[in-house]
Formats: sequence, C-alpha cells, structure tokens
Amino acid sequence: MSRLRLGMVGGGEGAFIGAVHRMAAALDGDWDLVAGAFSTDAGRNTRTGTLLNLDPQRVYPSIDAIIANERNLPADQRIDALAVVTPNHLHAPMAIAALNAGFHVFCEKPMAMSVVEAEAIAAAAKASGRHFALAFTYSGYPLIEEARARVERGDFGAIRLVQVEYLQGWLSQPIDTDGNKQAEWRTDPARAGLGGCLGDIGTHAFQLAEHVSGLSVHSVSADLTTHVEGRRLDDDVSALLRFEGGARGVLKATQVAAGEENGLRLRIHGERGGLDWSQMEPNTLTLRWLDRPAEIVRTGGPGMLDATASLARTPAGHPEGYIEAFGNLYRAFASAIRGDQDGRWFPGVTDGLRTMRFIEAVIANAGADQKWTLVNPGENG
Amino acid sequence: MSRLRLGMVGGGEGAFIGAVHRMAAALDGDWDLVAGAFSTDAGRNTRTGTLLNLDPQRVYPSIDAIIANERNLPADQRIDALAVVTPNHLHAPMAIAALNAGFHVFCEKPMAMSVVEAEAIAAAAKASGRHFALAFTYSGYPLIEEARARVERGDFGAIRLVQVEYLQGWLSQPIDTDGNKQAEWRTDPARAGLGGCLGDIGTHAFQLAEHVSGLSVHSVSADLTTHVEGRRLDDDVSALLRFEGGARGVLKATQVAAGEENGLRLRIHGERGGLDWSQMEPNTLTLRWLDRPAEIVRTGGPGMLDATASLARTPAGHPEGYIEAFGNLYRAFASAIRGDQDGRWFPGVTDGLRTMRFIEAVIANAGADQKWTLVNPGENG
Amino acid sequence: MSRLRLGMVGGGEGAFIGAVHRMAAALDGDWDLVAGAFSTDAGRNTRTGTLLNLDPQRVYPSIDAIIANERNLPADQRIDALAVVTPNHLHAPMAIAALNAGFHVFCEKPMAMSVVEAEAIAAAAKASGRHFALAFTYSGYPLIEEARARVERGDFGAIRLVQVEYLQGWLSQPIDTDGNKQAEWRTDPARAGLGGCLGDIGTHAFQLAEHVSGLSVHSVSADLTTHVEGRRLDDDVSALLRFEGGARGVLKATQVAAGEENGLRLRIHGERGGLDWSQMEPNTLTLRWLDRPAEIVRTGGPGMLDATASLARTPAGHPEGYIEAFGNLYRAFASAIRGDQDGRWFPGVTDGLRTMRFIEAVIANAGADQKWTLVNPGENG
Amino acid sequence: MSRLRLGMVGGGEGAFIGAVHRMAAALDGDWDLVAGAFSTDAGRNTRTGTLLNLDPQRVYPSIDAIIANERNLPADQRIDALAVVTPNHLHAPMAIAALNAGFHVFCEKPMAMSVVEAEAIAAAAKASGRHFALAFTYSGYPLIEEARARVERGDFGAIRLVQVEYLQGWLSQPIDTDGNKQAEWRTDPARAGLGGCLGDIGTHAFQLAEHVSGLSVHSVSADLTTHVEGRRLDDDVSALLRFEGGARGVLKATQVAAGEENGLRLRIHGERGGLDWSQMEPNTLTLRWLDRPAEIVRTGGPGMLDATASLARTPAGHPEGYIEAFGNLYRAFASAIRGDQDGRWFPGVTDGLRTMRFIEAVIANAGADQKWTLVNPGENG
Repeated sequence: MSRLRLGMVGGGEGAFIGAVHRMAAALDGDWDLVAGAFSTDAGRNTRTGTLLNLDPQRVYPSIDAIIANERNLPADQRIDALAVVTPNHLHAPMAIAALNAGFHVFCEKPMAMSVVEAEAIAAAAKASGRHFALAFTYSGYPLIEEARARVERGDFGAIRLVQVEYLQGWLSQPIDTDGNKQAEWRTDPARAGLGGCLGDIGTHAFQLAEHVSGLSVHSVSADLTTHVEGRRLDDDVSALLRFEGGARGVLKATQVAAGEENGLRLRIHGERGGLDWSQMEPNTLTLRWLDRPAEIVRTGGPGMLDATASLARTPAGHPEGYIEAFGNLYRAFASAIRGDQDGRWFPGVTDGLRTMRFIEAVIANAGADQKWTLVNPGENG
Repeated sequence: MSRLRLGMVGGGEGAFIGAVHRMAAALDGDWDLVAGAFSTDAGRNTRTGTLLNLDPQRVYPSIDAIIANERNLPADQRIDALAVVTPNHLHAPMAIAALNAGFHVFCEKPMAMSVVEAEAIAAAAKASGRHFALAFTYSGYPLIEEARARVERGDFGAIRLVQVEYLQGWLSQPIDTDGNKQAEWRTDPARAGLGGCLGDIGTHAFQLAEHVSGLSVHSVSADLTTHVEGRRLDDDVSALLRFEGGARGVLKATQVAAGEENGLRLRIHGERGGLDWSQMEPNTLTLRWLDRPAEIVRTGGPGMLDATASLARTPAGHPEGYIEAFGNLYRAFASAIRGDQDGRWFPGVTDGLRTMRFIEAVIANAGADQKWTLVNPGENG
Repeated sequence: MSRLRLGMVGGGEGAFIGAVHRMAAALDGDWDLVAGAFSTDAGRNTRTGTLLNLDPQRVYPSIDAIIANERNLPADQRIDALAVVTPNHLHAPMAIAALNAGFHVFCEKPMAMSVVEAEAIAAAAKASGRHFALAFTYSGYPLIEEARARVERGDFGAIRLVQVEYLQGWLSQPIDTDGNKQAEWRTDPARAGLGGCLGDIGTHAFQLAEHVSGLSVHSVSADLTTHVEGRRLDDDVSALLRFEGGARGVLKATQVAAGEENGLRLRIHGERGGLDWSQMEPNTLTLRWLDRPAEIVRTGGPGMLDATASLARTPAGHPEGYIEAFGNLYRAFASAIRGDQDGRWFPGVTDGLRTMRFIEAVIANAGADQKWTLVNPGENG
Repeated sequence: MSRLRLGMVGGGEGAFIGAVHRMAAALDGDWDLVAGAFSTDAGRNTRTGTLLNLDPQRVYPSIDAIIANERNLPADQRIDALAVVTPNHLHAPMAIAALNAGFHVFCEKPMAMSVVEAEAIAAAAKASGRHFALAFTYSGYPLIEEARARVERGDFGAIRLVQVEYLQGWLSQPIDTDGNKQAEWRTDPARAGLGGCLGDIGTHAFQLAEHVSGLSVHSVSADLTTHVEGRRLDDDVSALLRFEGGARGVLKATQVAAGEENGLRLRIHGERGGLDWSQMEPNTLTLRWLDRPAEIVRTGGPGMLDATASLARTPAGHPEGYIEAFGNLYRAFASAIRGDQDGRWFPGVTDGLRTMRFIEAVIANAGADQKWTLVNPGENG
C-alpha cells in the first residue's frame, strides 16, 4: 500500500510536539515525511531537514514556499497533507492556506486564537472538501474509545457526573522568563491566545470530557488564576460545568501543581456505575458498579469491545502509550484521506470549535460577577 | 491507669456509627462504656444494652434520664463523657444539656442544624469548661497529621492549590424511600439539616482541607444538585474555593457516584511540591516534588515526623484503618480530659463552626446568581 | 452478653505482639483482660498491670502462679482463656500447662520448637477438650476468607500455581546484636527454634498458602540463607513447593529485603483464572480471568460472598486492617468457647502441626544434596 | 542523516513479533525496511511486501535469495542489516548465513536451539566483524537502564536478593492444538527447542535479572512443569538461583497463570535498599530504602541519571511503552553500525550465550535428583 506524503510546518530540532508528530506518523507505515518548513531560522531549518533525511529541495523557508512548490509537483510526488505544529497564532492562517491549496491538514491544538478564526478554518475545510484533523491526542487511546463506546451504549445508565482534571507542574516557577522556549510562547498572549493553561491543557480536558460523555456543556462557572508573578496568562483553571440534560461536572487544569507530570484523568458516573481513566496509566480502564465488583478493562485484554480492540497494536500487557495514541489519529486521518468509509474517527473541526467556545466562555465568566456563562453551542456543535 | 467512663446516646443495634464509636473507644483501653440511651424504642434500647453487657440500671430511656441519674452517682462511678451519635437535629440540644450537666461531649458531625445552634454549643462548652470533641474522623489518621505538619513546616512552600473530593455512591438509587434507615434520616431536612450530601460528607471534605492546609476558605462558588428524583436534599456538591492568601481550591462531594465507596482524597500543592492522600489507602502519603523523585511516606515507616509516628500502633506494613483513626480521636479526647497538657489535638468547636458556616455559605450561593459568597470567618474562626 | 475473661503470659510494656492481642481482644467487646504474668522482671510486670488497669492481685509473677490461683477462683471470675505471647521456646510448656488446667489457649506462632513439641500440644488440647487457637493472623482478614471460599467453590478451576511471598527488611542490619530485643530473641536458636526468618514469617506464608488453596504441600526444595554476618539463624528462605495433586508453588520469605515493610502476598492461579491479595492493602482482592476483565472485590463491597461479608465491621471504603483481622480470630475463638456451632473457623492445632512439619522439612532439605524433601503429612494433616 | 536499510526474514502478515520489529525500527527514522522474505507461503509473502510498500523485486522467496541478491546491490542500496524473526530453529542457520555474507543481524530470542548453536553464531559474529543484536526487548526500557546503572553505582550496597517473575496466562488452555499458530510452534520441540515457557519467556527473565543486577548466576535448582495435558514442552518454570558472590534469587516464569497478561517484574534488594520494576507499568521505578521513604523514579522525571534520561522521547507523564523500548534497541543497533563509539549498549552475543546455558542447566536439573546444577560460565560469560 503506497504511503501518503506528509509535509510539516514548525517542529524544528528541539521542539517537542513536531518530533511527536513525526514518530506518530512513522509508526504504522502510513506516511512518509517528505517536505517541511521547520523553522524561520534558516540554519535550524536546514539542519532539521538533514537530520530527517529530507531532499534539500523540499526543505522550504516558509509555508508559502511549501504551498507554492508542492502544489506544482506531480500528483504522485506532492504532499497529501500538511502538519501544522507551530505556536497557536499561526494555526488559522496556515491551516486555511493549506486547505485552500488543496492539502489535508493535521493541526495542533488549540485550533486557533478565537472562535472567529476557528470558524474561518471550518469554512475553509468545508469549501475545500479536505480533511482537517486536530491533535486532541488523548482521543486516540484505545481505552478512551472503549470508554466512549460504553457510555454511548448505556452501560452506566444516564450520566450524572463528569470529573476531568489535567495536572501539570512544569510552570511552577517563572521559567517562561528564563529562556525556556516552550514556556515562553505558551505564556505570551500574542502567540498563545486568550488562555494560557486554559488553552494549552484546559482544552484537552474539555474535549475529552465532551467526547467521552457524549454530552455538551451548557454553561460554565470558572476561576482563572495566575499564580506565578509576572506571568501574562493564566496558569490555573477551575470550572464548574453544567451539561445539557442535567449532568454536573468539574474541570480542573493547572500547570503549577508542582511535582505533577501530565496528569490527565477522566471520571464519569451514571446511574448504575462509572468509569475512571488516567492518561499516565492509559492501558487500564476501571469500571465501577453499584451492584457488582469493579472491573479492570485492559488495552488488548478480554472484555474490550471488538470495535475498539483493533486500536491496539500488541497483545495485552505490552504497554502502548502516548506516541501510539497519537499514531492512531494519524492512522485514522490516513484512512479518511484514502476514502475508507469505515475509517476511524479523528478529532477535527467540531472539537476545535467547541474548545474555542469553551475558552471564550471561561474568559468571559472569570471576569464577571455572574455565576454562569453559556458555552455557545454554535451551528456546528 | 483507671479508665474513663463513657455514656452514649443513640447508636442502637444496627446503627452504623454508634458501633464505630464503641470500637474506637475500646481499642486503646482508655474508656469503658458504662451507660447509654441507645434507642427510643424500648425493646431495642434494652437489647443493645444487653449485647453490650451493660448494667441494666444504666440503660436509660432518654438523655434526660442519663443526665438526671448519672450526675448523682459517685464521682468514681458516673460517666465522664457522653457520646452523641444521634441524627443531626439532636446534636445541639443533647450536647448542650450534657455540657451544662458537667459532662464532656464527643459529638457526631455535622455539629448542628445551623450556625446559630453551633454557636450555642460553643458557648455551652466555654461556660462549662468541658471538652467538646467532634467526629471529624479523618483528622485522626497518622498521615493526615503528617501532612498537616509538613505543610505547616513549609515543605511545599506557599500553598497554591487545594483539591478535596469525597465520592460515595450509596445514594445512587432512591433507597431513602425504600426503608434504608441510614438513608432515610440523612435525606430528611428535619433531621439532617440544610444539607444532605453537603452536611454529611461535604463537611468532612471542607474540614480536612482547612485542617491540613492551615488555610481558611474566604469565599465559595457552588453548584448543589439533587440527582435522584424525589429526594428532599442535595446528593451532590461541587464548589470552587478561594482561600485567604490566594490559594485556589476545588471541593467535590457526592453520594451518587455509583460504584464509589468512601473516596475521600486530599491533594495540596505549593510552590515546590505537593501531597496526595486517599482515605481508602490511608497508610500511604505521596509527596511529589518539582526537582526530585516523588516520595512515599508510610504509616510507621522511615521519614515520618517523630511527632506523628506515635499515632500508629503497629510497625509499618501492618495496616491501620478507620477504626484506629477514630480511636486516635478518643485517645486524644481522653488525654485532654485527664489534663495532659501535651495531649494530642482533636477536632472540636472551631472545626464545627467553620463547617456550619461552610454549609450556610454553599446553600446561600447555590441559590444565587452571584458568583462568590463569603464563608463568614466568625469570631472563633 | 457477658464477656469472656482473658489472661495473658508475656507481652510486657514495649513488646509488640502482646499489645496487639490486647487491642484485638478489646475491639468487639467479647473479652476482658483480667489477669496476666507480663514479664519476669517484677517491676515491668507490675507497671504493665497498672497501665492495663488490672487488679494487682491478678498480676502474677509467673504462669504457674496464674494457673494455681485462677483455677481456684469462682467460675464467674476466673479466666476462660490464656494468651501465650512469649518467645517460642515457652509456647509448648505454657500452652500444655494451661490446657491441662482447663483453660482455653490462644498461642503465638510458630506453635512450638519442634514437631514433637507441637504434637504434645495437640495431645493436650485433645485430652482437655479445650480450644487451642494459633495466631496466624492473616487468616482473619475478610478477603482471605473470601479467597479461600472462592477457591473451594471452584471459581478458578483446578489450581495449578501458588505463589506466596513475605518480604520484610527490618533485619537487614545486625540489629540483633545491637540491643533490639525483638531481633535478639528471634535470632537466638534457644528461644526461636530451628528457623529464624523461616519460623517467624516463613510459617505465616506457608500456612496462608495451604489455608487458601486448600491444598497440602507434598514436598519442598529449599535454599536457606543467613545474609548478615554473625547471625545465628537464617534470615532468608526460598522454596519450591510441590502440592498434592500437581500444583506447583514458590515460597519466598525474607527479613533482609531492605526497605520492605510487611509484604505478605498470595497469588493462586487455576485453569480459568487467579487471585491476588497483598496484606499491606488488605481490603482489595484482585480476581483475574482468562476470558473476561479482572475484578476487584473489596472488603464490604458488592460481590463478596455472604458468608465472608460479615467479617467486616464497617461499610466498604472504611479500611480495616491488621488489628481487625486479629480481632476476627479473637471473636471466632470466643464464639467457639461459647459453644456457637456455626462459629467462625480459627487457625489451631492442624495449622500449627503443618507449619512445624514445614520448618523441619526445609531445615532437612537445606542441608542436603537431594532436591526434594517430603513434608510429612502426619496424622492430623 | 541517511537511513540504514533493513531486511527481514519471517514476520509475514498476522505474525506478532515481525510487526513489532517494523514499528520499532520506524519509530526514530533510523531505518528503512527495504527487503524481506516474510513467509514461505508465496502468496502471503507477496501480500506482506505489498502491504509494506516494498519494491516487489526485493520481496524474496527465502533468506538465500535475500543474501544472494542483496550482496550484489550497490553499497548505497543493499541492506545493512537483517532482522531474523522466525521460529527459533531457524535463528542460527539464518543469522550465521547473514553474518557470513557481511550483514549485521538483529535476531529474535532465544538465540538458538542449543549452546552449541549459539556458540556458532558467536563465532560467526566475531569472524565477520558484524554486529549481532538480540531482541531482549525489556533491556531497552529507560528505567531498566536506570535500575542497572544504580545497582552498578552501589546505591543499594551489596546485592543480596534477586526476584524475577514473568507471568502469562495465554497458554492456560490447549490452544496449541487448536490452530493458534503462535502457540503451535512455541510448543513444538522441533521449532522451539528444549524449552517451552522456559525458552520463550524464562530467558527474558533470566537475562533481565543478570543484566540489571550485574551478577552471574552460579547454579540453579529448578522445577519444570507441563500443566496442560498433551503439551509437548513445559509451560511453567520455577527456579532457585544462586549467584556468584552469594546473592540468592528466585525465578518464576509461566504461561498458564490464567488471567495474567505479560507480567514481567524484577526486584533486587541490597544491604541498604532495593528496586522494583514491572513491565506493565514501565515508566515507574520504585526504590525502597532502609532509612528513608521510598522514591518513585519516573521515565523522564527528576532524579533520573543523565545517562539514562536520553532514552525517553517525551517529557515525563507521556507514557512510552513496549514499542519504544524495542525502538531503543534498534536505535542503539543503528548507532553501533554507524560506528558511534559511545552508542548505547544493546543485548547481543553474551546475553544470548548466557540464556542458552541457563536453558540447558534448567533442563538438566529438572530431570535430576541433585539439587543444584551449575550454569556453565563459558568463555564468553
């Protein structure tokens, strides 16, 4: 099966997430990375291309150059899709340009700087007929799909409670002004957007909660805090959630929980039982029941639904992790591009719009005296 | 060392918490249960007294009878203290009567039906010069004292985040109208008070958060819900907390998290690290640090502060649990009664007043459009 | 219900296990400690009696004095049973004397210094018609009874594998020659017997393995080691076990696993699934299955067999531990003395004989070139 | 950096381990799979080549064809290394042929059918000057390297105890005669060799124990069992280990622990502390200490040695698993081929010879009456 060709903008040597995209795309043999504009620093751009063994002709100085050149290559050579792995303020212009030029796009989250920008991407995707994937990585874990399917099937009865938390500690000190590039742009409103922690990981938490519960958040009451002096964006979010239909939720995301790593955890309870999943031990899904012992569903183990078991690559007990979850999104994205009708789902425009609306609702509520702020449902959910 | 004599009101056969008080009091040989009014049902009262091997003369029909008779017994025979283990609406009148009669009181939580009632107890305790202990059991765990002492000592730097949750599932179905006596009175406003879940376990969560963090909650924004149709009090609480000094908190307490048992968990993070403790595995305290590996402090194990190690009865690895934690409160209560100046601390009037103020603040906030409601600091904290 | 009266020999202030016996006996109100010979040091003996609030007339200088005086007291005053909590070399003479005098006996493990001694106790128990309980504490945990009953019921099919381990680290350094009294007598052949670690905790592991599996060990191949220089008994045991019927086992017990606390763990696997239980988290029993998700059975939670649920005192999620497990043995012992036909089982003569035979088989095998040594089944199992 | 070219023999569609090798080799961009002889079934061979997007000219009918053709290709086209992922009986002839033809070899374990065969591979590797890697995957986990380095550095003092276990349950039923191809050849002496479970996973356990402890097993006493009727090789191994220098060990490997997945666990204790690592949660390494709290070292987290931190691809809390560990071996293998002097270590000839000697020692001991059998140290360790 011939491979799809991937280009990348951003992700120069030393960047975190670009390398993850490359490993994820390589894992299953669906993709070849063949082109890129990795850095606006020409030397770094070239070095990255060399390290990645790319044809120097296809290491471009900019996204404009990528688009200009790649669209003129023969169909069996030019890139099929572009991965946008830049800071947030570039997501919308780059994704729109790529979509308009006929390329599929795999974009980092958060989708954009505002709902307005996100809607523009949505419109470009629709107009172009191209696929738009969004890197809500955690949706790619097999047991997240298992959890979602079980909620949908009604295993737990009507859902009453959703608790999602995402605890990191890496911004506990003012490293954003100490030369840490990851921290620097993530706390810069001009590049990160309205939310700091809110946009960076609060969106992951929100997306996962809605995705697995199958419920939409109706309104939010939030407390947004900056604990580290001098920081320009929030580093801590707490929010009460009210879902359509009456379920209640709590969302906690923080980057100043000193000592925490990447503690994303989701719990959902319904009338008859509940589920519990933690990203740091992602191959275990605990199901608790009102009237019988708790069950431990394991990636690849017995009891997994047929439809989700195929998301694992190895037998139970051979742990798969973050890169594999990411790889599942790239695999599904490839499947969709190839026209596979029953290709796996991947997060995209709808998830992007919902999370941008969440960001704006939290920002609005955090500055207000009123308790609840609607999360605008929008046209596209 | 001669034993102190305990009387009990409430706690007839089949009741949960009365039996726990009796085991806790018996554990360390500090107390003899010698008198009681266990039930208003005379047969049940008598049966309970017989089961407990009490002198039938001291199995009384009511608290009034206890007080009337016991106060006239010789000093070396009459009860030293009275355990009040009735539904909530009786706490205040009974505790006040006992204190006024010169008996020390060990009372179940929540302290009373209102702040006003709680203040009356506080006044009676003060006027009588007697000790008043409140059954915030979880404060009795050795590792809770370890956690509190480490926060106080500054191990984690200034505290930024407090997360406390208390998840139960036993009220997921409408068992309160199905003959379950425990559920019945706990969901009856006339006997339980203003809060259902809020009063029953929300108060535990709040007390633990303030006790260990050493911080006072300044204001609260809350969502109070009744998920089970027909129930007369809340069965689910979510609250955002703002502490004096700037720390932020989230409190979640629910009795409809189907499949959960008694999931009280406290996490506190400061500038340099944080702590994590779960009541269901109470002999493990996890300390996470910004710059070094997490540590596991174990009840009775190395690294425990000298002052807290003595709260354990057995060497590390011999698990102690809920009854032992409860026993630590009874031991400290006995120690205080005996006049031991460096006797252990136990929760009392101050904890009771704070939690009653919390209940009233949540009730007020839950019905309002405004986001934040002050938790009145009061005179006594 | 009037209480039974307990006497105790050994267990002076500062001793570990005597205090545990007292707490365990007090927990459920079945016993009053009324007499004792706690120490051969007269001052320590008196102080202990005073601390325990005993009548000074019943604080005796020796077991002979206990027996001589107590047997002449009126039936409603004299002790019903004697707890023997001395070093091992005194178990047999004391237990036999007490049984012969008509008292029931609750004895510490290992039962005796040899199979011959153990058989003498067995004979005395039989001749006297008195009950003899042995402190194999871990059999008292509710989930151990749950595990045993499930194996017996055939939940896992025919048993193939038994793995038992007991890891402690407290003898990692030569504290036995440094004034630690607990360590001193446990490593002294004259007081501890043939086995060091083998007798102290290897017997616990062996008893638990046979008790829960319902299988008898046929033969053993063992490696017995003393890691700490100068120590006079073993501090480390490894053994391969062959059970009647073909199951295979591994037993590991050590007191030099530096950093380990009291790590007793039992795993049993049959044709269709297996169980896993660890003493340090005793309220969780994991059941793994060939064809469905693992289950977590919790003390007091759903799925527990009716017959075992009653061993818990509190609802699920209120952790019970070591003292409660011990208390279950004292409760069952009391129940048997009272003639309750369906009283709970407690470990006794049969367990004691089996473990003594195991000690002797390991000692014999460890010094031999032959691979397997029979564990003599004896008359009484 | 131009990629190395990999060929593969075995690993046709549906095979487990071949796919793992391909993902592992792809992960970091060091390798391109360019040639293969995936199956002796011509159709399956072709289909696999197509799925993998290989040039049909380089999908060969046999290893002989691979060697004959590839060696004649230009240096910048022909394969650099051959992955041998066939059943065990083909390892030696194929590896030797490839080495003799000048190709580096990455071979599945166990190395061969006998020590004699393994020595022939060792000789061929030496004579050819080519690299020979062996798929002892678990050595590739970052925390295994951390553990090894800490033992070597003396963190725990002199090592006393080594416990290694590898529990699987997938052979609990007679699936080897039910059409399961993985089970079929693994229980066939003609293809698997002398050991069943012993060769398949017992070797992993043995290699890991020696690798991390830095100690050599001197002698072994073993019990080798076939629990499933009709099975031709063992499915269960228990062994006592004596190490050079006096440490004691227990090794347990089984494939009939019904319900277990891939439970490889290693524990090592020295005079001052010990380590504990489980493959199913590979990003956590627990260090326990005699005199201070246990520590949790996490992949990528603080406290990891600099030399081992680089084995992780993502920040702490982004779990890496089995494929990533395998990828570390392929990365180190590539590094060595490229002549990197400080390239990472990977398991090879020495590990292979030791494990073959272990197999033969266990087989010899299991059939003997004598207790201990030497594990021949050999010339090459």
